[in-house]
Amino acid sequence: MKIIVLNCGSSSIKYQLFDMPARTVLAKGIVDKIGLKGAAIKHKRNDGVEAKLEGDILDHQSGIEYLLGVLISKKYGSIESLDEISAVGHRVVHAGEKFSGSVLITDEVIEALEECVDLAPLHNPPNLKGIYAMKELLPEVLQVGVFDTAFHQTMPPKAYLYGLPYALYEKYKIRRYGFHGTSHKYVSQRACEFLGVDIHNQRIITCHLGNGASLAAIDRGRSVDTSMGMTPLEGLVMGTRCGDLDVGALLYIADKEETSIQYTSTLVNKFSGMLGISGISSDMRDIEIAAEQGNERARLAMEIYQYRVRKYIGAYAAAMGGVDMIVFTGGIGENDTVTRTKSLEGLEYMGVLVDTEKSLSIRGKEVEISKPESRVKVLVIPTDEEFMIAKDTYEIYSKVGMEVK
Amino acid sequence: MKIIVLNCGSSSIKYQLFDMPARTVLAKGIVDKIGLKGAAIKHKRNDGVEAKLEGDILDHQSGIEYLLGVLISKKYGSIESLDEISAVGHRVVHAGEKFSGSVLITDEVIEALEECVDLAPLHNPPNLKGIYAMKELLPEVLQVGVFDTAFHQTMPPKAYLYGLPYALYEKYKIRRYGFHGTSHKYVSQRACEFLGVDIHNQRIITCHLGNGASLAAIDRGRSVDTSMGMTPLEGLVMGTRCGDLDVGALLYIADKEETSIQYTSTLVNKFSGMLGISGISSDMRDIEIAAEQGNERARLAMEIYQYRVRKYIGAYAAAMGGVDMIVFTGGIGENDTVTRTKSLEGLEYMGVLVDTEKSLSIRGKEVEISKPESRVKVLVIPTDEEFMIAKDTYEIYSKVGMEVK
Repeated sequence: MKIIVLNCGSSSIKYQLFDMPARTVLAKGIVDKIGLKGAAIKHKRNDGVEAKLEGDILDHQSGIEYLLGVLISKKYGSIESLDEISAVGHRVVHAGEKFSGSVLITDEVIEALEECVDLAPLHNPPNLKGIYAMKELLPEVLQVGVFDTAFHQTMPPKAYLYGLPYALYEKYKIRRYGFHGTSHKYVSQRACEFLGVDIHNQRIITCHLGNGASLAAIDRGRSVDTSMGMTPLEGLVMGTRCGDLDVGALLYIADKEETSIQYTSTLVNKFSGMLGISGISSDMRDIEIAAEQGNERARLAMEIYQYRVRKYIGAYAAAMGGVDMIVFTGGIGENDTVTRTKSLEGLEYMGVLVDTEKSLSIRGKEVEISKPESRVKVLVIPTDEEFMIAKDTYEIYSKVGMEVK
Repeated sequence: MKIIVLNCGSSSIKYQLFDMPARTVLAKGIVDKIGLKGAAIKHKRNDGVEAKLEGDILDHQSGIEYLLGVLISKKYGSIESLDEISAVGHRVVHAGEKFSGSVLITDEVIEALEECVDLAPLHNPPNLKGIYAMKELLPEVLQVGVFDTAFHQTMPPKAYLYGLPYALYEKYKIRRYGFHGTSHKYVSQRACEFLGVDIHNQRIITCHLGNGASLAAIDRGRSVDTSMGMTPLEGLVMGTRCGDLDVGALLYIADKEETSIQYTSTLVNKFSGMLGISGISSDMRDIEIAAEQGNERARLAMEIYQYRVRKYIGAYAAAMGGVDMIVFTGGIGENDTVTRTKSLEGLEYMGVLVDTEKSLSIRGKEVEISKPESRVKVLVIPTDEEFMIAKDTYEIYSKVGMEVK
């Protein structure tokens, strides 16, 4: 059966067409610059056929209409007719406390997600646009929501509550939610498969290091803590986000610069992190090149990045009473061999023995980078959020699909 | 020789008269409610003679004049004449990046501290008032400044820099400074004396848990990280301070409540922390009683407190590549046997074996609470910041005192 996976951003839509349960990606692509000049679809079929199709794409619905057209087109398509599509899986960023797993999208679910817009004002609205468009275009097709926050809903209150007046939790639901849940879930499960161990007796720390970055503590299959918070600003230093920061420092800056909340928000979201420290780029590759060429602030930015990852690994080991497995994923976690290797330095005391040569040499594939005698296994597992979305969608379809259709 | 130690707050002055190097406290007390109704000196001499002397105390200088009078009085005094006083040691909260150790107070030092007022607008001004008053009242006497931030000036940039634009560090000196330095220094040194080990080969985590609370990672005698940041708001959950908090959550609250920076600052400084979560009190003793009586939020507040301490211990162990000693101090660290014992749960993986019975039973004295076979030694060391100030003052006096007098 065919499943479309959609990840709708404010001006782009990433899509993949899966054949499930075979797990084959029949085609994938991106609808880019929606509503902007230079809008186009970049499409790639699994036999290597590629296309860049330009044209006016005014909104998400016309973007999705366009991509559906490409999927059934003679020249670039993978299916004969839209009737072959059994289900659509949507990536949705924030489900607040409403959903702790993927769900069949109903009117009640849409209503609940609309209520979460406040919590993710940049992300949830385009996610919802994708859902509305698909309801319009493929009204008969089952739709599933897969949420970035859902996997972390198993966190205990001691991990998700902040040291704020409890009334703020009750009134505004101010708490830690965490993100990248689909990725943390996938790589923790996949790492256990890879090693042939049962996730239910493993304490795992997953490090999703991309442009956004977070760690999760996964105790026997359940997320018990994660470094992103109510928003994706908390935790590690990221491409342009500040990560952990004394709120007193933020208030100090706001006071000194006599600025608005809006400005301060832009400062910590867009101009901070690796970009802010290095002054060079938000891209770790650029920063590494600069560091190699002797740029002191680039070197410093990398050191800070690694140091924070290491401290979080230490904190989560303490949170779980020890750790059995550490997993790296995401663009940096999979490919930046220096960052992951340096982040793991000095952890021998907790049973981490890294095969440095291996860690420094292997990119972007599933590999164990700890030494055979290491008590804690360290792995690189390329993430595959789209597959997880397809998988959850397939499972929900298998359960309820027949009734719905 | 006699040394006065002064700790000047906004409306109170704590003082101790030391005989050094004998380390004898000849008298101590507090000038309370300066400028307010009910102003008084509560004085206690080391032979047990006590006094509460009420009267108008309009400002810090008259408060200090008053306490000097008490010190030489026939009835309550400890010395014959003010000429016996060789030096005054002042506790000063924030020295920014200017001082990494205690210093003889000169006009240049005063100027430097005036420049730090911005960094600690509540604390440095009364500290400076004490210095100005003493210069006026005892112009011939050597004065020494001992700074809460100084001990942490050995932190490397990877620990003290935030993920913010580097220009904010250059422009406003936005960085981690840390506080409680005098306490962290004292208890780490004292713990090594107690165990008869050389601090230069020890990795120590010190937990100063009082109404304000912070941890420090002390690697071979040097502070390499600490949980308070640019301000004392960061890190652990405290009596009324929030500790670590997603700055995105703070911006969200400010936006929702349409409030000013001033209001938000009050919220996170005065109404958050243990008070905010429990809704009961900022005092751990009250919270514990409520928790024992079944109050759920009190129980939760305690659990959050312990969990954060544990995570920081884990993080700092990772930061130093392991830990040899963990030291508890401060009102809670010394006396709250439940909190410190629970905070240490689940750390066996890093070599911490707590003698639970001992940890749960001994309060307020120097004691080792780890089992004999524990690789990591865990100790309780009552802090003595006043003695540290007297000691630093004595040392500086011994070096430069003769020239100055």
